[in-house]
Parts: sequence; C-alpha cells; structure tokens
Amino acid sequence: MSDWEGEESRNENQYRDHTNTKGPRKTNRDTKVEDSTFWNAMMQADLEAAINKSPVMNQAKNIIFFLGDGTSISTLTAARFLKGFLTGEHEHQVMSYEKFPYSTLIKTYSADTMVTDSAASATAYLTGVKANQDTIGVDANVLNMDCDAMNNPAYHTTSVLRNFQDAGKSTGIVTTSRVTHASPAGNYAHTAERSWENDFDLTEDGQDTDLCDDVAEQLVLGETGSKIKVIMGGGRQKFTPLGVPDPELGSWGSRLDGKDLIETWLTEKELMGNASYVWQREELLAVNTSATDYLLGLFDWSHMAYFVDNDTRNPTLEEMTRTAIEILSRDTNGYFLFVEGAKIDLAHHDNEYRSALEEALQLEKAIALADAMTDPQDTLILLTADHSHPLVINGYADLRADIRGFGGTSDIDDLPYTTLLYTNGPAYRGEVNGSRPDPSLEDYTNPHYAAATAVPRDSSTHAGEDVILYARGPQAHLFSGIHENAFIPHTLRYAACVGDGLQFCSASSKKMEGK
Amino acid sequence: MSDWEGEESRNENQYRDHTNTKGPRKTNRDTKVEDSTFWNAMMQADLEAAINKSPVMNQAKNIIFFLGDGTSISTLTAARFLKGFLTGEHEHQVMSYEKFPYSTLIKTYSADTMVTDSAASATAYLTGVKANQDTIGVDANVLNMDCDAMNNPAYHTTSVLRNFQDAGKSTGIVTTSRVTHASPAGNYAHTAERSWENDFDLTEDGQDTDLCDDVAEQLVLGETGSKIKVIMGGGRQKFTPLGVPDPELGSWGSRLDGKDLIETWLTEKELMGNASYVWQREELLAVNTSATDYLLGLFDWSHMAYFVDNDTRNPTLEEMTRTAIEILSRDTNGYFLFVEGAKIDLAHHDNEYRSALEEALQLEKAIALADAMTDPQDTLILLTADHSHPLVINGYADLRADIRGFGGTSDIDDLPYTTLLYTNGPAYRGEVNGSRPDPSLEDYTNPHYAAATAVPRDSSTHAGEDVILYARGPQAHLFSGIHENAFIPHTLRYAACVGDGLQFCSASSKKMEGK
Repeated sequence: MSDWEGEESRNENQYRDHTNTKGPRKTNRDTKVEDSTFWNAMMQADLEAAINKSPVMNQAKNIIFFLGDGTSISTLTAARFLKGFLTGEHEHQVMSYEKFPYSTLIKTYSADTMVTDSAASATAYLTGVKANQDTIGVDANVLNMDCDAMNNPAYHTTSVLRNFQDAGKSTGIVTTSRVTHASPAGNYAHTAERSWENDFDLTEDGQDTDLCDDVAEQLVLGETGSKIKVIMGGGRQKFTPLGVPDPELGSWGSRLDGKDLIETWLTEKELMGNASYVWQREELLAVNTSATDYLLGLFDWSHMAYFVDNDTRNPTLEEMTRTAIEILSRDTNGYFLFVEGAKIDLAHHDNEYRSALEEALQLEKAIALADAMTDPQDTLILLTADHSHPLVINGYADLRADIRGFGGTSDIDDLPYTTLLYTNGPAYRGEVNGSRPDPSLEDYTNPHYAAATAVPRDSSTHAGEDVILYARGPQAHLFSGIHENAFIPHTLRYAACVGDGLQFCSASSKKMEGK
Repeated sequence: MSDWEGEESRNENQYRDHTNTKGPRKTNRDTKVEDSTFWNAMMQADLEAAINKSPVMNQAKNIIFFLGDGTSISTLTAARFLKGFLTGEHEHQVMSYEKFPYSTLIKTYSADTMVTDSAASATAYLTGVKANQDTIGVDANVLNMDCDAMNNPAYHTTSVLRNFQDAGKSTGIVTTSRVTHASPAGNYAHTAERSWENDFDLTEDGQDTDLCDDVAEQLVLGETGSKIKVIMGGGRQKFTPLGVPDPELGSWGSRLDGKDLIETWLTEKELMGNASYVWQREELLAVNTSATDYLLGLFDWSHMAYFVDNDTRNPTLEEMTRTAIEILSRDTNGYFLFVEGAKIDLAHHDNEYRSALEEALQLEKAIALADAMTDPQDTLILLTADHSHPLVINGYADLRADIRGFGGTSDIDDLPYTTLLYTNGPAYRGEVNGSRPDPSLEDYTNPHYAAATAVPRDSSTHAGEDVILYARGPQAHLFSGIHENAFIPHTLRYAACVGDGLQFCSASSKKMEGK
C-alpha cells in the first residue's frame, strides 16, 4: 500500500481482500456456466409469473397457520442452502413456502420489550393484541405473574382458533413442543406466566392453584381448549399426577392435584364422538381418520425429541399434519389448524445450528404436504415466525458448499470459522491459551454441534429484527409490505369471515348490493 | 428444580429464565397501557388500508433506485428503534420506506459464493444477471481478474440505467462512497475486478492498462458512463493524476496516466450543455438546478466522510438526492436515478453499529424526500440492499430503551452485553485475564464504538440471508413473495417499458386490442 493511500488503507483493505481470495475462485460446479442467456430466460419467466399472479378473492373456508418458532430469515435461507445441497438443486432450490405468492415483513416486539419471547408474540399473532413478555392470551393490563389480573375476563384476548369454534368450525393444534408450551397455548390459554403449564409450576412460583388455572387444565377443561378436536405434540408430564410413571423414559407425571387430565380428556370426548388418545407413532399411523372426531396425541414426556435424535417412536411433523388435516377436513364448515415447528427455536437456544436446520426442513415438508392436500381456492396457508434468533450466515463459502461447514479462515488468527455463528449463547468458547479454539478440531459434524458466540449465555437470547410471513390462498394478497404481528389475526378473521372486525363476506356482499 | 424434571432441566431453564427477569418488568413507559382496545383499533385501520390498496397500473416514467449497502433487515429494524427513540415515537415509529405498499424478499447469492460481495450483487440487481464475486457488468463467463474475458462484449450485461439512456431518458447516480465503487459502477462499468477503479489499481494487480479500462475512465469516457447527467459522491483520487494535490486532506491523485478526468468530464460536458463540477457542500447548494444539464460532484478524496464525523464541507445524502431529482426531473421523457447509502456497509465492516445506524437514518431521510418530491402515479421508488451484515439485535432490552445500549447481563459471566453484536469482524476482543472484557467500562457512547464479535477478522464478512425490497409506484405490486436479486432489473424494464423482455406498455396495448 503506497503512502498516499495510507489514510484510507483500512477501507481499501476491506475491499482488496474482502473475500480472502483475490483472483478466480475454485468452485465445485460441474455444470455449464450460467450466463446472461440463462439468467435472462429464468428472470423473464419469473416476471411473467408475477404479472399473471392474481389474488384469490374468496372467503377462506380453512386456515392452516404454520409457525416456525425462532425461525429467522437467516434460518430460512440457511435451510434452503442445506436442502439444495442435499437434493443437488443447490442455489436453485425452492422451498414449499417460497412458492406462496405473497409475503410481508412482520414486526415482533412485545408490549414491554424490543425482543419478544414466544408467549407475548403468540398473543399478538394468534389473538391480534400485543402482550407483556411471558404472558399469554391477555392484554398489556396483565403484568407478568399477576394471577388476579389474568382472571379478569376484560383483559382476555380472543384467538382466531376460538373465533372458528364460535362460528361452528373445527380446530386443531400440532406442535413438536409440549402442547402446553407458549406458542400452542396462545390458541386457547389465558395466563400471566407461560411456565404455569401445570399446578406444580404454579406452586413453585408460590401461586394459589385454586385461584389460577394452569395451562394443561385450560387445554382439557377450558372453554376454548375443551373444544379443540385435534391436539398433538409432547408434554405428558403436565397432564399426569405426581408419582404416576410415564410409559417412556422412566419419568413421572408432575401434577400435584392428582388429576389425570389425559384420562379426563378421553372420558369427556368419548361422550361427544369417536375419540382416541395415542402416544406412539405406530398408534398415530393406525388412526382411522375418517371415523375419528377427537384425537389427542402426546408423544413425549416433555418436548418431542429432536429430529436428529431419530426417535422412531415419534411421528414426524409431516405425519402429524397429515392426520390433523384428514380429521379436520371432514368438517364441511371449515377448520383452523395451528402447526408449529417448535424445536427450531430450542436448538437455536443451544446454538445447535445443525439440529435447528434439520427441524426447519421437517417444517418445510409439513408445509409442502398441507399445500398439496388443500385447495388454494378455499384454504389460506401461512408460515411465519414468532421472533428471530442470533444466527448469522457468515461469508464466504463457495456457492455449492455445505453450509454446515466452514466459511473461511480468519485473517487475524489464521483459524477457520464455521459459516454459521451466533452472537450469544451457551456455546461461547472464550479463549484457550490466549487463542480462539480451532473449530476444525472439534466434533463439527455432530448433529448437536454448537457454533461459537460472542457472548456467553446459559441459553441464547432471541433476536429482534423483523421476520417474514408467506401466504397463499384466499385474501393472502393482504400480506404485503410490513405489518405488526398483531395484524395477522385481524386479516385471518377478515378472510374467514369470523370474529369481530372487518369481514370479507360483508365487504363483498356490500359491493354486490352497490351494483 | 425437582428430580423428575431434571432430565429436561436445560430446556426448562431456557424458558423459566429466558428474559432474566421473572416477574413484572420495570418499563420506561409514561403513557397509558396499550390494551386490546388500542391494538384492535390500530390493526383494523391497518387492515382497512391493506384492503383498499390497489396497484398503480401505469408505465413508470421515472425510477429512483435506493440501495442500502449491507443494509440487512436487522439494520433496518435497529434503525427504526433508534429513530423511534430519538423522536419519541418509539415502537410506533414508521420509516419512509415502510409506508411503501409492497415488499419482497430478495435472494443475494452470487454466481460463485453463498454470500455475495457488492460487485456481483450490483451486476444482478442493476443488470439482471448473476455474476462472479468481485466482477461488475459481466456475466459468469468472466472470472475474477480476467481482463481478456471482460473485454468480450458478448459477456457484457446491460444496466437499467443504460436502458433508460437508450430510450432517450436522463440518468444519474448518487452515492456516499467513491463514485467508482462497486455499487454505483454496476450502472455503467464492465470489469473483471471491482478494485480496478483507476490505472494505478490495474498496475498494482499487474494488468496491462492499455488493454483494460479502469472504472473511472469508463465513467468519464465510456459509452454508458459518459451519458450520465448527474454524478455525485466521493473518490477524486481515482480521477486525478499522481502528484496533483487534492484540495482537501493533503492527499494526491493516484492516476498513473497523467489524465485529469474531472477536467476532461467538464470540458466534454460544457460542449453539450450547462455543466458544473462541484466538490463542496456550499457549491452544491448554490447550483441552479433549473439551468443545469450536467453535474459532477466529488466531495471527498476517497469515500465521503461518515455522517457521525460531521464533515460540514460535505452535503448530506438527502441534499444530493434533492439536487439530482431537480435536475433529472426536467427531462419530460423521464429519468433513472440510483442513490446509495454506501457507508452503512463500511461502518458494519468495522463493527461500528452506531455509525452504521446513523448512515441508515440518513438514507431514510433521502427516501422520505424522494417520496415527497415525486408522484406515485408516474415514479417507481424502491429500496433494497445488496447483501446483509452479521449484525444481531440481541434480547432483552426494554421496549423503549436506547438500542445502542445494553441488552442485559450474561448469566454465565455476570457481565453486560450490548444489544447489538456481530458474529465476526475487527472488534473481536477475546479475553483479558480469562474474562470477556466488560463493555460498560468501554467508551460505548463513542459514535465509532465497535461491538464484540465471536470471530476476529480484519474486516467483517457480509452475511448471506435474504434482504428486503420495498417499492411504491407503477408496477410496484410485482414485488411480492420472494425473488432473486436478478429479478429486479427485469421488473424495472417492464414497468418503464425500456430494454429487452416483457414490457408493460406492449402488454397493456395487447389487452386494449383484445377488447
């Protein structure tokens, strides 16, 4: 670097060496160069599709709401690269939800924090009102842990799932977490603290269990919860009495009130129709969906196992989704189904990007299935996330490399770094003998491998940038630009003509009258 | 934690303590609680606006293309929180581009890398064809540094700016970087290496300067560059001879060929109309735009100074944008204007989030101005980014806190961390005496403060997740869902009825014939 450029040398250097590889890169391409002809043809075709796109101006008979917990845009992009690597489609891989014609950015902050938790956000994207951190199904008048306030019906918010029930339609929830966890609970619960999943949890927090209903009880006995026809996920412990052994794992239930809520659920539902309780994959696959009115599936003691742990006793998210749609679609009035890929978030909390991406691929498969099983003319499908996570896709791996591998070598310490890194979380390594540990000497192909972070935390925080929402079907075109997470339920109610507020049906009938 | 929950204690803990603040948070609110009534009214109004939104089905007479270099969605969200903090609007702050009715995700990978640089991406979003890393205005047949290939016209790609010139319309470029830097160069240059900004750079790389035209020469003498009517930014050094002193800074030009391209530009343009060269803010503000046909403004020797460095000799991006629109809008045939907030990227490369966010606020102001100065019925305005950066908004600051401050205290090392952190870059701190340095003891209010990272690099890498594009005006509705960055120019040509490919004008005339 010559003298007269010295003053700007720092900036210069950023660009003289920004890819670490001045000169032609070695690529792992075995295909023809994709030149102007290739891209012009491909983009003209995409433009033609965009021009010919037209909104579906029907009422939404059915809504399937896919929620990727903690599924940031970085997670979605990384999952696309990973699937492309696995299928050989590479950068041309298109995910099922990316075929949906509409998308909007979604702002996720809660009523009291910049970066939301999953409880406050579930309240917003499922009921249309922003809530305080850690509270579910209540507005911002309810402070966290305030049992009195949570019992005030004036502070309760109403979920779209409940709107569907009130309109005489069927409802279901499917998740890979405990079914009493924050996101699914947003559909049916009202609580000042998300962790009050059963009375043991309430007692641990010094609460009066006579005054405050726990989430499991609200699911089985509550006005909304008790009407849900299909419930699948994990979390048996929250439903069964302390001391009663779980069929798996050598664990026990944890309820202090001695109630067996699984038994209660089955007894009540059998009075109302054909009801089944299942807790293993084989049982689920054997369910006769054409003759089942109510289904409860609790496949693990707590959250369902990670996909990478290959617990074959568990169904996949895709299998649960199929069963749910088969049962719910028997209702000619329509249905609302909530499906959550919950463990994307949990893997991120441990900085385990490999596991998180595998969970994201499972969610993608479930969405592809729902897309194939339903008609865009009557079924609105959406995918969104409740919040982001501090995962970053760092430069500059070859285009067709495995995104789970290395991005390059640091020009400061001459050590490699993984393409995927986090800013905070438990996998913080610090330094060993004055040096950053070399990740290439670590067990980096282990599915539970955790990437380095800048700041240590027992569990990573969430991240606060906007997330994306993809949609297809009736009124999906209303999702464009940027909106609050609380906008979503209002738009769903409009599309399905349920609940309070603007409704497509009355708007279109008004237009008819006007003619 | 009781025994029977031990097996899941790690996951439990994530949620029992995920905000570090069990119990009601102290908030810095001085306003009424925003309850169900508040949110329901606000979201119903937003829904009504979404329902009433209708596409502008005109030809785009003018296009203003705003590019936030390295302006990830995290950057945009953080800038919104910062502006809200400064204005008192807090979380209800709406940015100028957020009022645009349409948005789409944009995929940014280059022809050879997962995470693009600004040259390859400029080729894609300005000419419609993906290119190899570090190359500009050429397709993937041209490998980086291949001077022979870059001279092959068959490999050249055509920018929308050039399409506008060919259609007899006016064009301009405005940036805060050197005007020969990768992003603006995407409008007018064809080069196998972005850093060949003048012949000094070519010589440094051992290239034959008779064979390869440098970028500055292409701007002043090239077929496209010489037709650009308005050029503003930095980078005088690339235009002036070695040894000729710069009017500022005590620096010199760096051209080896002895050419003074600023003089050449002025001489040539004075033959064609009223032409001005300016290099200071006061000169720019004195320009009579109603009588100016050509304007060259080079306000710094290299990139323009950071906004936080408050160099009052420089105009703001808003001031440059105003002048450019005033001059270009005199053309009744229409115009294409490219405006770049370039230093968002440069600040991120140094992990200087405070400076990056101030640059983002300057860009936002320029967009607000362009929005106010033009009519959505004839002017298409878009904002997008060329790539992301490894900036993360970590949890869990209070909603109305200063995002430039602290997110919380680590439950591992009991030290605070800033809300904004990076995964890699020069501000990596490592450990001092076996401990992460305490950021609260650092000069964290300094506008050039740099946040901690997980991996050290002389300059941070870019990041690879999808970016956002906002649009308003004619055909803006075509931007929805998710698209390649190379999709953008095809859609702009369609909207403005210029260049090759599908065109709105012929499509609408066909429809007219069909009637």
